[in-house]
Amino acid sequence: MTGQPLPCELCELAVPTVYRDDKLSVIIVDDAAYPGFCRVIWNKHVKEMSDLPAEDRALLNDAVYRVEKALVDIMKPAKVNLASLGNMVPHLHWHLIPRYADDAQFPSPVWAPAVRTTDENVLAQRRALLPQLAAEIARRMEERP
Amino acid sequence: MTGQPLPCELCELAVPTVYRDDKLSVIIVDDAAYPGFCRVIWNKHVKEMSDLPAEDRALLNDAVYRVEKALVDIMKPAKVNLASLGNMVPHLHWHLIPRYADDAQFPSPVWAPAVRTTDENVLAQRRALLPQLAAEIARRMEERP
Repeated sequence: MTGQPLPCELCELAVPTVYRDDKLSVIIVDDAAYPGFCRVIWNKHVKEMSDLPAEDRALLNDAVYRVEKALVDIMKPAKVNLASLGNMVPHLHWHLIPRYADDAQFPSPVWAPAVRTTDENVLAQRRALLPQLAAEIARRMEERP
Repeated sequence: MTGQPLPCELCELAVPTVYRDDKLSVIIVDDAAYPGFCRVIWNKHVKEMSDLPAEDRALLNDAVYRVEKALVDIMKPAKVNLASLGNMVPHLHWHLIPRYADDAQFPSPVWAPAVRTTDENVLAQRRALLPQLAAEIARRMEERP
């Protein structure tokens, strides 16, 4: 933890990662309504993308798009949503969310009020893909030059 | 408009831009609660970031971070939020939103229900910065190599 007075939950990442190196980590978030929700987290406590040196920014972007591609291939969503917000935790992290026409908020962002409940069998089918998703993320991250 | 059956409002961009070239456009969104809300729009109808060739993706990312830097310098927000969603309009566009502790949804995303109304004088002060913001975006976009 550097550069800030309060403890930061992303500086001390306490959840299992599907990929981690000295620069960044990838997790699959355990979100009941959104199986496949991933985060790509920059390990160091940095606030904005434009605070990163260009080389690190390119590295982080590349990781985000590798995870996006794994989501497209394995989860087959209608759309992938990408967001770097950080209002609560100003430590660079990207949300990657596979979206479906039958998900709780579609077509609104996942932070809008829910408009439906997704069928539990459909969610279970999507959840069953998570081991494949984890393997595909690791594969795509490890094939980086 | 290419590659899709329905008309797309971003293929036929009908709002003034603060910057435009053959690849992308930048607009300042006229959002009453969020002065400084910008969008960076890829001109061609492409759905996901990972659908772009690496070179174009780098170009679009670079533009996003140039606009982010202009937002940080001129609007002096608590945080910048970045999002590429596209559930309603699956044509690549980035939302860049300067966030403040007194804005309507802080610290939640701007798509969450509003929890307060920002003082009208404060909004007017932020709105008064928009000509400077437009000039700074144009300057930073034009200094690209």
